[in-house]
Amino acid sequence: MNEVVYLDHAATSWPKPPGVLAAMQKAMEEAAANPGRGSHQMAVQASRVLFETRRVLAQLFRVKNPNNIIFTHNTTQALNMAIKGILKSGDYVVATMIEHNSVRRPLEYLMRTLDIQVDYIGVNDQGELDMQQLEACLSKNPSLVVCSHSSNLLGSILPIQRIGELARSSGAVFLVDAAQSAGVLDIDVESCCIDMLAFPGHKGLLGPQGTGGLYLSPEIELEPLIHGGTGSQSEEKEMPSVRPDRYEAGTLNTVGIAGLRAGVEYVLKETPQQIYEHEWALTQMMIDGLKGLPGMNLLGPAQGKERTGIVAFTIEGRDSTEIAFRLDRQYGIAVRAGMHCTPLAHYAVRTDKTGAVRASVGANSTEQEVQRMVEAMRELVR
Amino acid sequence: MNEVVYLDHAATSWPKPPGVLAAMQKAMEEAAANPGRGSHQMAVQASRVLFETRRVLAQLFRVKNPNNIIFTHNTTQALNMAIKGILKSGDYVVATMIEHNSVRRPLEYLMRTLDIQVDYIGVNDQGELDMQQLEACLSKNPSLVVCSHSSNLLGSILPIQRIGELARSSGAVFLVDAAQSAGVLDIDVESCCIDMLAFPGHKGLLGPQGTGGLYLSPEIELEPLIHGGTGSQSEEKEMPSVRPDRYEAGTLNTVGIAGLRAGVEYVLKETPQQIYEHEWALTQMMIDGLKGLPGMNLLGPAQGKERTGIVAFTIEGRDSTEIAFRLDRQYGIAVRAGMHCTPLAHYAVRTDKTGAVRASVGANSTEQEVQRMVEAMRELVR
Repeated sequence: MNEVVYLDHAATSWPKPPGVLAAMQKAMEEAAANPGRGSHQMAVQASRVLFETRRVLAQLFRVKNPNNIIFTHNTTQALNMAIKGILKSGDYVVATMIEHNSVRRPLEYLMRTLDIQVDYIGVNDQGELDMQQLEACLSKNPSLVVCSHSSNLLGSILPIQRIGELARSSGAVFLVDAAQSAGVLDIDVESCCIDMLAFPGHKGLLGPQGTGGLYLSPEIELEPLIHGGTGSQSEEKEMPSVRPDRYEAGTLNTVGIAGLRAGVEYVLKETPQQIYEHEWALTQMMIDGLKGLPGMNLLGPAQGKERTGIVAFTIEGRDSTEIAFRLDRQYGIAVRAGMHCTPLAHYAVRTDKTGAVRASVGANSTEQEVQRMVEAMRELVR
Repeated sequence: MNEVVYLDHAATSWPKPPGVLAAMQKAMEEAAANPGRGSHQMAVQASRVLFETRRVLAQLFRVKNPNNIIFTHNTTQALNMAIKGILKSGDYVVATMIEHNSVRRPLEYLMRTLDIQVDYIGVNDQGELDMQQLEACLSKNPSLVVCSHSSNLLGSILPIQRIGELARSSGAVFLVDAAQSAGVLDIDVESCCIDMLAFPGHKGLLGPQGTGGLYLSPEIELEPLIHGGTGSQSEEKEMPSVRPDRYEAGTLNTVGIAGLRAGVEYVLKETPQQIYEHEWALTQMMIDGLKGLPGMNLLGPAQGKERTGIVAFTIEGRDSTEIAFRLDRQYGIAVRAGMHCTPLAHYAVRTDKTGAVRASVGANSTEQEVQRMVEAMRELVR
C-alpha cells in the first residue's frame, strides 16, 4: 500500500483527517454505551456525541433545529427513507437522468408496487439539466421532485436553488441527493427550498463509512422506513412522533458518528468553498493534462466550467476496466471504472455500452497526485 | 469515567476486546476504500474485510455459504428486512410476548397497512413460553413464526430448536431474533430449522456499534428493504438477484465490520459455551446477593435455571429510574432502568406500570463488579 495515489474520493474519501480516528478511539473508550437507552453517565455521553454531531451538521446545512437531522447507515438508506416515506399510490415524481441507483431503484420499485409515475428530466452532453423539460413536467403537479446535486459520473452541478424554487411553486416536496456535494458545495436548506436532504458521512464530510443522514423539514412527516425500539415511548405500538427518535429505530453507530463530527468540523474550518476551489483547480489541471491524449473523450462540463472533483473519460477502442486495472497495478493509482450506478447518465453521454474511467479528487488530494495520474495516462495510451 | 462498573451489556457490550479497535484502525488506514465499487487494491482489500467477517460469522452460526450473511446497520434493520420482506397482505404471524419493539413495531405497522394478523404467544412469570398455545396457533398455518431467542428483560431462553422444528412442520418460515443470544448461546441455523437469523454486531459478538446482520436461508428470497446501488449489475432497474448484493444497497460500514471480525474471532476462541457459563455464574452470584433484600422482586428464571446475562428486578415502593440513577451517581454502576422496549414482556411480569432495573453482564464482567453491584443495592434499599 505504499504511496497509493487515491483518486476514488467520489466512492469514499481517504485518508480521513487525523482527528477522525482519534475521535472514534475516544468514543470507543469513553462514550460507546447505547445512546438513549440508559441514564447512566456513559449513555449520556453517547447521547451527547450524537447531539454534537447533529449540531455541526445543522450548522453546515443551515438547519435551525439539529433534531431534524436523522442519522442513517448511508445515503442510500436516507434516500429510501425519504422516497418510500413520502410517496403514495399513483403519485407523480420528477427526477433527472443523472440520478444514482439509490434514487432510481427505489422509484422503480414504487412504480412496480404503488403505480407511481416518474419522469427523468434529460441532461445534455455536459450534464446540464433541460430546464424547459423540467418546467413542463412541473406543470403536471408532481408530489415529489428529486435531484442529485452533482452527478457522480459527470461532476456536473445542478442549480438546486432554482430547481427548489420551481418545485416549491409547483407544490412539490423537494428532495436533494447530496452524495457528491455535501462538504464541497454550499447547501442552505432554507434558501434552496429543500424539504429533504440526503447526505453521506464518508465522502465530502470526511467521516467514516457507516454514517450518513437525512435532513427532514419540520413540516414533513414520513412513515418510517424502519420500525423498532427507540428508547422512548416504548410502551406504544407505533413509532414515537418526536424527532429524531421516530426515524432512528435501533442502535446507532455512535463511534462512527463521533468520527463524523471530527470530519464535519474539519470541513467547517477549511470551509466548503475553499475545498471546492482546491478540488476544482485539480480537476482543471487533470483535464488540461488529459485532453490532448489520443482517443481521449472527456465527460462532463467543459474545461473552465464549474464541476465537483470528478473527471470521467473513455478512450476510443480501449476498455475502461483495463485502463483502471493498469493504473492500479502498474502505477498504484486508484480510480474506478465501468458502470457507476447511474445508467441514465451513462446513456445521456453514450457510455452505457462502454462504461467509463472515473478519477475523483478530494479535500486532501495534491497536484503531484494529479500529475502522476496524467503521466500514467500518457504512457498508457501511447 | 474512572472505574465505572459497566452492567449494561444487554444494551451494548463495553469495553470491546483490544483487537477490535486495532482492527478498526488498521482497516481505516489500509482498507477503507469502498468495497465492491472498484477493482483497485484498496477496494479489493475492503471487499476482503467484508468476506472475512462473513466467513467467521458463518462459522459461528454453522452457515454453509457466507454470502447468505447480509450486513446491516443493526439488528433492527435486519428484523425489518426479514419481516417486511417476507410478509404479504393477509398473512398470519405467530410471535411471542417477549419480542422487542424491533419485532413488534414492524408487525404492528403491517397489521395497519397490509392487514396481517399476529398472535403473541404468552410467557409465564419466568419468561417460559406457553408451548400449548404455540402449537394451537401453529395449527392455523402461519406464514411466519418469529421469536426472540432470549428475552431482553427477563433473560429467559426460548427453546428455539423445538420451536423451529414445530414451525417447519407447520410450513412456516422461522425467524429468530438473536439480539441477546448471538455469541453467548449456541446457534446452529440448520439443526434449529432457522430460515432467518437477525443478530447485532455490538452486543455478544463484541464488535462496534453500526454493525449487525441477517442470515437468510438460500431458499428464501425477500423484497429488499432498501433499494439502491450495489456496484453490480448497475444498468438494471431492479436489485440484482445475487447475494449478498441484493440486500446490501449503499456503502457498508467497512471499518466497523473489520472490528466485528475481531470480536467474532474472540468469541470463537473463548467459545460461546464458556462465555455463557461465565455470565451465568455471575448472574447466579448477583441473584444470590440480591434475593434477600427488602422489597426485592427478581424477574425472570428462578435461581439455578438457565438464563442469559440479564438480572432485572423491581423494589417495592421504589422507582426503578431512581435506583438506576443512584447506582450511577453514587456508586459508578451503569445499569438500565424503566421500560425496555418490550412492553408485552413487562405486561407478562406485571412491570408495565413500574418499569424495572436491569443489570446485565458480559464476557468481560467480573465477580468483583457483581459484588459492587450487590453491595450498592444493599445500601440503597436499607
